[in-house]
Amino acid sequence: MFLPQNVLEEKLRKMLAEDLGQGDVTTALVVPAQSMAEAHVIAKEAGIVAGMEETEILLKSVGLNVEMLASDGDAIKKKQVLMKISGNARVLISVERTLLNIVSRMSGIATTTRKLADKLAKAKLKTKVACTRKTAPGLLYFDKKAVMIGGGDPHRLHLDDLVLLKDNHIAVVGDIGKAVKRAKENASFCKKIEVETSTVEEALSAVKAGADIIMFDNFSPKQVRRGVNVLKKNEFFGKVLLEASGGITEDNILEYASTGVDLVSLGEITDSAKTLDISLEIMKASKKR
Amino acid sequence: MFLPQNVLEEKLRKMLAEDLGQGDVTTALVVPAQSMAEAHVIAKEAGIVAGMEETEILLKSVGLNVEMLASDGDAIKKKQVLMKISGNARVLISVERTLLNIVSRMSGIATTTRKLADKLAKAKLKTKVACTRKTAPGLLYFDKKAVMIGGGDPHRLHLDDLVLLKDNHIAVVGDIGKAVKRAKENASFCKKIEVETSTVEEALSAVKAGADIIMFDNFSPKQVRRGVNVLKKNEFFGKVLLEASGGITEDNILEYASTGVDLVSLGEITDSAKTLDISLEIMKASKKR
Amino acid sequence: MFLPQNVLEEKLRKMLAEDLGQGDVTTALVVPAQSMAEAHVIAKEAGIVAGMEETEILLKSVGLNVEMLASDGDAIKKKQVLMKISGNARVLISVERTLLNIVSRMSGIATTTRKLADKLAKAKLKTKVACTRKTAPGLLYFDKKAVMIGGGDPHRLHLDDLVLLKDNHIAVVGDIGKAVKRAKENASFCKKIEVETSTVEEALSAVKAGADIIMFDNFSPKQVRRGVNVLKKNEFFGKVLLEASGGITEDNILEYASTGVDLVSLGEITDSAKTLDISLEIMKASKKR
Amino acid sequence: MFLPQNVLEEKLRKMLAEDLGQGDVTTALVVPAQSMAEAHVIAKEAGIVAGMEETEILLKSVGLNVEMLASDGDAIKKKQVLMKISGNARVLISVERTLLNIVSRMSGIATTTRKLADKLAKAKLKTKVACTRKTAPGLLYFDKKAVMIGGGDPHRLHLDDLVLLKDNHIAVVGDIGKAVKRAKENASFCKKIEVETSTVEEALSAVKAGADIIMFDNFSPKQVRRGVNVLKKNEFFGKVLLEASGGITEDNILEYASTGVDLVSLGEITDSAKTLDISLEIMKASKKR
Amino acid sequence: MFLPQNVLEEKLRKMLAEDLGQGDVTTALVVPAQSMAEAHVIAKEAGIVAGMEETEILLKSVGLNVEMLASDGDAIKKKQVLMKISGNARVLISVERTLLNIVSRMSGIATTTRKLADKLAKAKLKTKVACTRKTAPGLLYFDKKAVMIGGGDPHRLHLDDLVLLKDNHIAVVGDIGKAVKRAKENASFCKKIEVETSTVEEALSAVKAGADIIMFDNFSPKQVRRGVNVLKKNEFFGKVLLEASGGITEDNILEYASTGVDLVSLGEITDSAKTLDISLEIMKASKKR
Amino acid sequence: MFLPQNVLEEKLRKMLAEDLGQGDVTTALVVPAQSMAEAHVIAKEAGIVAGMEETEILLKSVGLNVEMLASDGDAIKKKQVLMKISGNARVLISVERTLLNIVSRMSGIATTTRKLADKLAKAKLKTKVACTRKTAPGLLYFDKKAVMIGGGDPHRLHLDDLVLLKDNHIAVVGDIGKAVKRAKENASFCKKIEVETSTVEEALSAVKAGADIIMFDNFSPKQVRRGVNVLKKNEFFGKVLLEASGGITEDNILEYASTGVDLVSLGEITDSAKTLDISLEIMKASKKR
Repeated sequence: MFLPQNVLEEKLRKMLAEDLGQGDVTTALVVPAQSMAEAHVIAKEAGIVAGMEETEILLKSVGLNVEMLASDGDAIKKKQVLMKISGNARVLISVERTLLNIVSRMSGIATTTRKLADKLAKAKLKTKVACTRKTAPGLLYFDKKAVMIGGGDPHRLHLDDLVLLKDNHIAVVGDIGKAVKRAKENASFCKKIEVETSTVEEALSAVKAGADIIMFDNFSPKQVRRGVNVLKKNEFFGKVLLEASGGITEDNILEYASTGVDLVSLGEITDSAKTLDISLEIMKASKKR
Repeated sequence: MFLPQNVLEEKLRKMLAEDLGQGDVTTALVVPAQSMAEAHVIAKEAGIVAGMEETEILLKSVGLNVEMLASDGDAIKKKQVLMKISGNARVLISVERTLLNIVSRMSGIATTTRKLADKLAKAKLKTKVACTRKTAPGLLYFDKKAVMIGGGDPHRLHLDDLVLLKDNHIAVVGDIGKAVKRAKENASFCKKIEVETSTVEEALSAVKAGADIIMFDNFSPKQVRRGVNVLKKNEFFGKVLLEASGGITEDNILEYASTGVDLVSLGEITDSAKTLDISLEIMKASKKR
Repeated sequence: MFLPQNVLEEKLRKMLAEDLGQGDVTTALVVPAQSMAEAHVIAKEAGIVAGMEETEILLKSVGLNVEMLASDGDAIKKKQVLMKISGNARVLISVERTLLNIVSRMSGIATTTRKLADKLAKAKLKTKVACTRKTAPGLLYFDKKAVMIGGGDPHRLHLDDLVLLKDNHIAVVGDIGKAVKRAKENASFCKKIEVETSTVEEALSAVKAGADIIMFDNFSPKQVRRGVNVLKKNEFFGKVLLEASGGITEDNILEYASTGVDLVSLGEITDSAKTLDISLEIMKASKKR
Repeated sequence: MFLPQNVLEEKLRKMLAEDLGQGDVTTALVVPAQSMAEAHVIAKEAGIVAGMEETEILLKSVGLNVEMLASDGDAIKKKQVLMKISGNARVLISVERTLLNIVSRMSGIATTTRKLADKLAKAKLKTKVACTRKTAPGLLYFDKKAVMIGGGDPHRLHLDDLVLLKDNHIAVVGDIGKAVKRAKENASFCKKIEVETSTVEEALSAVKAGADIIMFDNFSPKQVRRGVNVLKKNEFFGKVLLEASGGITEDNILEYASTGVDLVSLGEITDSAKTLDISLEIMKASKKR
Repeated sequence: MFLPQNVLEEKLRKMLAEDLGQGDVTTALVVPAQSMAEAHVIAKEAGIVAGMEETEILLKSVGLNVEMLASDGDAIKKKQVLMKISGNARVLISVERTLLNIVSRMSGIATTTRKLADKLAKAKLKTKVACTRKTAPGLLYFDKKAVMIGGGDPHRLHLDDLVLLKDNHIAVVGDIGKAVKRAKENASFCKKIEVETSTVEEALSAVKAGADIIMFDNFSPKQVRRGVNVLKKNEFFGKVLLEASGGITEDNILEYASTGVDLVSLGEITDSAKTLDISLEIMKASKKR
Repeated sequence: MFLPQNVLEEKLRKMLAEDLGQGDVTTALVVPAQSMAEAHVIAKEAGIVAGMEETEILLKSVGLNVEMLASDGDAIKKKQVLMKISGNARVLISVERTLLNIVSRMSGIATTTRKLADKLAKAKLKTKVACTRKTAPGLLYFDKKAVMIGGGDPHRLHLDDLVLLKDNHIAVVGDIGKAVKRAKENASFCKKIEVETSTVEEALSAVKAGADIIMFDNFSPKQVRRGVNVLKKNEFFGKVLLEASGGITEDNILEYASTGVDLVSLGEITDSAKTLDISLEIMKASKKR
C-alpha cells in the first residue's frame, strides 16, 4: 500500500478542508500573519506510532518544515517527541487537529494490532491477526495501513482484490458448492477465492469446489478446532488457508489461535479502536525576520 | 446540521466508491445481473440508532427501495429490524458494508453519548455532554451529527464557527488578556468567544477581557469547583458559559458535572467510540421477472 | 477566515481551469515555450486592495515568482504597482485574466465597504457595516473575505455558523416566540441566535424568548429608532445586538446608523459591487537562457 | 452553451454545498423534518429574467417540485411570480439563498445587456453588444449565458475557442504582423483570429497579416471612426469584423456604435452588474400527511 | 467488476463534461429547447458489443429513455440496432459522441479479445487470453471490463490487487529469490504472488521461493516450452500458473498457447485496439406536446 | 492548447490515482522506503515523440528529478533515450506504467499523424490532416494535443468552440439552409460555422446560407472532386474551407487530398491509434545516503 505524495496529499487535503470550513477564524483574529512558531508533536502515552508518512506529507503540503523523530511502527514511550515542526504559526495551528486526528487514530489502531500480534507471538503461535472491512466509513486506506504497521494483515483492501463469498452471496445463489464453482470457473487468475462458512460441512464443500481460503464465521473455538481437524484429514491439508472470524476478542484470541488456523480476524481493531493520546505543543513563537 | 439529499449523496458516494475500487468482483462472479433480493438491517445489540437519514439517501442513490422502521435517536432493541431493503441483488450486496459502517459508527457514537447524557439527567444535573473536534479524520459531519442524535452538543462544527482561543494561540500571542481583547475587538458579531484556560486566574482574566465561554482544561473536579465559585462571585455570574474538558470519563463525569459547569466535553465520544453491532441479512432472493 | 495554501490553491485552480478550457490556444501559437517575461500588476484607479493573499498563492501554484508590493487592506493610488511577477511567459499570460478577475472583484468589494465604514467613522458612529449571504454564487469565501479586508463584518459565513431565524422559518413554524424558544432550547452552546423581525413587537417577543441579536428587516430609519428605544427601555438593554437591514444605501446609511443600531447590513456590497480597475502589463520579455 | 442536466447539476451542487457548510443549523432547529411548504419566487423589480433553466435543475436535484412561470429572456414585471415551488420545507429553505443568488445575478446581467442592446436597436444600429472575460471568477458559464439571454454576444467562452492576440502577446513576440502571421500559419482551421490594436496602423498591419477580427482597444470614438474608414478603404472591407473595446459606457455606447463597428464590448456587463431584486416567499406550510 | 449506478455515473459524467466544455453551442443555436427526438444506435460492422451497461446509465443520467436491444458480450451483426433512445433532442445530440466513443472503444476491445479467445478455443487449447495494464491512460475500468466481456482475463485491475514482481523491482532488490521470499513473508494472505522472469533459471528460482504465478517475459515459443517442461518436471507441477507475455500477436498466439502455458497476455488488446464502427441516427424528431 | 502545470497535474494525478487503487502493494513489499534509483525511458521503435511535457509535469509532481532528452515532436530512433529519471525507487516504479501509457499513446497518435502529413507533403499537397472528436473517452486533451504535435489539425477541441451542423442537427431542424441561416444569425462572432453535407447540392445550399466551412461526409474521391469544382465555380471560391471526412484511410488519403480540399479528417488517428513502444529501465539502484 504505497502511494506517491501527490495522491496521498489529495486525501489529506480533503480532510483538512472539511475541518477548516471557510477558514480558521480564531487564528486569523489573534495570530499575526507573519508569526513563526516551532512545535513538538508529543506522545502522551506509550504505544506503536503510525501515520508518520501521512503526517509528513500533510505538513509539507501546507508549507511547514518538519523533522521526523520516529518512524511508522516504532514503539514509542510516553513523553517521546515524535516530530519537530517549524514555520508559519497560522498554518501550524490551523493544521494541528487534522494532523493529530490522523496520527492518533492510526497509532491507536497500530497499538491495538501489535498488542494482539505480540500475544500470539509470545505463545509461539504462527497465527496472524487480521482486520476486516469494518473501518470508519471512507477510511479504508488509513485504517488498513495502520493495521499493517501494527503487524496485522489488512485483509481485503476493498471489493476488487479478493473473491470473498459471504453468507449473503450464498443466500442469493442458493448452494455453497455451486457458488464456489461458478466463481472458480470465471474468476481472474489473479484472484484467490475465500468462502465464509457457518458449519464444518459447508467448509468441506467449499474446499472441494476449489476455495483457496476458508473462513470459519462465528464458530466457537471448539468448532474451529473440529474444522481444522476435518480439513487436515483430507487431501486439502496445506493447500487451503484457514481463517477464524466473529466473536474473537483480546480475551479469547489465544484460544482461537491455538486451534491451528492461519488467521484470526477482528472488526474491532479498526471500527472500535481507542486512539493513542498524542498532542502538539508550541515551543517557541516569534515574528518573522 | 441539515443537508439536502444531493449534497449528502456526494459524501456517501465517495465512501462507497472507495470500498468498491474497480468494482465488486465477487458479486459480479456469482450473482446474476437480474437477481432481486430483499434484506433486513437488524440490530445485534440494543442502543440508540443514528445514521438512518444518511442510509436512506445512500440506498435511494443506488436505486434500491427502502422502508425505514426506526428513526434517528430511537432506542432500539437487540434483534430489532431497522429497515427493509429491496431491489437488485448485486447492488444490495455491493453497498452492504458501506451502509453498515455508517450506521454502526453513528449509532455507536449516539449510544455512548446518550448513556452519558442519561447519567447526568438521572442526577438531576443540567450540565450538557459535548464532543470535541477529535473525530475520525474527515468525518466531522457524521461524528458530530451522531453526537447530536445522542443528545449531546456538537461543539464547534469546524474552525469557522466559534472563536476558540487555545493554549497554542496563547503561546504565540503571549498574554491571555491581550489575546481575548484582540479577538473581542475584531471578531464578527456572529461569533461567541471561548477561551481555554489552565488556571482559575487565567479564566478570570479571560472573562474580564470579554470571553463568552470559559473552558477549564485539564482541571481536577476540585479545581473546576473553585473556578465556578470564583466566577460566580464576580459580576460575570450568569453571563459566561463554563465548560470542563480534559480527563473526563464515564467514571468521573458526575463529579465534574456536579461542580456547576454548563458543559462537560469528551474527545472519546467521537474518537474512540465502540460501534453498535448491526447487520444486514438477505431474507429472500429471486430472479427478476 | 484563514486557509492554508493548499486548500486555497484548490479553489483558485478550479477558477483557472474553467478559464483555460482545453488550454490557451493563442499563447501556444505565438509565445515560444521558453520565453520569459516580467510583468507589473498596476492599479488603474485608487481604492482598497484585496485578494493579494489569494493572488500570491495562485502565482506560486503555477510556478511564477512574485514580489508583493502592497498588502490586503492597503489604500492604493492610481498607477501604483501592486506586484511584480516574473517567469515563463506562457504561464504568465495564461493566468492573467483569472488573477485580475479575483483581485479586481475583491478590491472592488473592499473599496465599497471601506467607503461606507469611513462614512460612519467620520460621523463618530460605532455602528459597523456588514454584508449578507447575497454574494456571487459560489464565491462566499472570496466576497466575505473582501468585506473583512474593507473593514466590514462578514456576517454568517454560511448556513452553519449562526442561528438566524428568517421570515420563511417563522412562516413555517407559525409563531416567532415559539420559534426562538425552540431554537434557544436546542441550539449548540457555540451559537448565537439572531431573529429577523418585521415589527417592533416581533422584536420584543424575540428578545423575550432569548434572542441574542435582532434584525430590523426593511424598517424605515424612524421605525428602527423606535425599535432601539423600546428595546433600550427594557431590561434587555446592552444584552442584545441590533442590526438594521433592507433598503439601506450609501445615501441613507448615516440615517440608519444614527438610530443607535450596532450594525447596518447591505446585500449590495457583495452582490452588486463595482470592480476596481486593475491591469497587468508585461514590462520585459526574453528568451530563456 | 447547452449543458445536459447532470453536468449543470454538478456546478450547482458545489455552489449549494459551499453555502451549507456542515448543514443548515437554523432550519434543523426549528423546522420539523416532515414539514411541507409552498413558495413563490417573485420579482421585486422589472427586468429580463435569466437563470430559470439553472434554477429548475437545482430545485429538481434536491427533490423539490417546481412550476416555471417565466422563461429565460422574458421581460418580467415587478411583483411577477416567476416560479412556484413545493416540497419539503427544510430543503426549500436551505436552498433559497443559493437559488436567489443565481437567478438575481444572471437576471441582473441579462437586464443590463438588454438595456444596452435595446439602445442600439432603437438607434437602428446593427452593432452588437458583447461582454468580455471580465466575469466573477469561476462564473464564466453563468455570466456569459446571462449575456446571451440578454441579447448580447458572449465573446470568448474561455481561452480555447478564439485566437485573440492581446497587448501582452505582442509585448512578448515584439511585432504585431509577425505575431498574426505566426498565428495564421499554425492555428486550427476552426479558429478565427482576432487582434487587439492600439493604433489604426497596428490594425492595418494585423489585417494585412490575416486577422479575421480587429479590436480597437481604448480608442476614442473619433479614433474608432478613423479606423473603420481606413479599413473600409482597403480591399479588406467586408472581410474583417471590427470591435471597439475599453472605456465604453452606457453614456457613450451610441457614439461608439455609430462609428460602424460590428461590436462594442464592455467588461462592466459581467464584472460590475447590479443584481435584479428577486425574492422567495413561503405561501403555505403544513405537516406532511 | 460490478459498480452501482451512481459510482459509474460519476465516471461517465466527467467524460461527458470534458466533451461539452462550456456547452454545446451548435445544438443551442439550431435545436429548439423543447424538440423531442428518437434515435437508433446502429452497428456499422459485426463484432462483440460492450459498454451497454455504461451507455444505459449514461443515457438515464441525462434524462433520456432507452430501450436496450443487445447485451454486453452479444455477437452483433452489421446494421443491427443496439438501442433505441428517445427524449429531448438537445440532450440526445449533446451526448451522442461521448456515448459512441465509449461503446465503440469497449466493443472494439471486446471484439479483438473474443477473436483471440475463439482462436484458442478452436484449437482446443485451455490457455486463456489476458490483457495487461497497458490501457488508455485513466481507462483501466473501461478497458479491462471490455476484455472480460470479450472472454479474456483482466489481469491486475490496478496496483493493489496482485503482487507482481517485475524486472524493475528485481533491479532494485538485486536478487530474484530474495525478492520473492521477502514478498512471500510479508504479503497479505489475500494476494497471489506473480514473478516476471527472463530466463528459465529465474523462473525456477522464483517458484522455489514461493511464487504462485510465473510470467515468461519476452520468451520465444521455444523458450516458453522449455520453461513449461522444466517446471513440469519439478514437484511444482500443477501448483503454479504459467503466463507468457511479450511479443505475442494474433499470428503467433497459437504457437505460444500450445506450449502449455495457462495464459497468454497482450498489451495490444487494450492499448492499440481498433474501435468497432457504431453510429447514432435520429429516426424521428418532433416538437414537444 | 497550453495548460499551466497545476491544471495539467490534476488531470495526470487522477490517471495515476486510478492505477494505484489503495496503493502499490508489490513495491511496498520489496522495495525499501529509502531506496534510490535512476532510470531511462527508452524508445523501442522509431517514431514521433509526444507527451513529453505531460510526463515532465507528472514526474515532478511526485517528487522525481528528470532530465528531458527529447522534445515533443522530435523524430526519435529505436533505442533512443528520451529522458533520465532519478529519485525515490518506490515512487519511480509506482508511476512507471501511468507514465508509459501516456507517452506511448500520445507518441503513437503523433507518429500516425506525422506519417499521413508527410505523405501529403511529399505529394506537394497543401491539404492538412485533421482528427475528429472520436477519441478515447475522456482523453480529448491528450489525443488532440498529440495530433497537433504530429502536425495535424485538432479540429474541434470540444462542443463549444466551433459551430458544426451535423446530420442529426439537420434531421431535427429539417432543412439545411434553414439550419445554417439560424446558426449564422445567432452565433457569436467568435465562431466559424461548419456544415456536414452528404451531397454537393447540400454543400451549395450551406455555402449560400453563410457556412464558413463545408464537410463532404462519406463522399467518394470523385464526388469530392465534383464538390470542389462546383464550389470553385461559384463566387464562394476562396471564401470557404473544404473538408473531406469519412472512409479516408492511409491508402486513399492521397486520392482524397488531391481533389483540392483543404482538409482530410480521420477518426482512426485518435480512436484506433497503435501506441509507440516505449519502456522504462532502471539503470542503477542504491540505498539513500
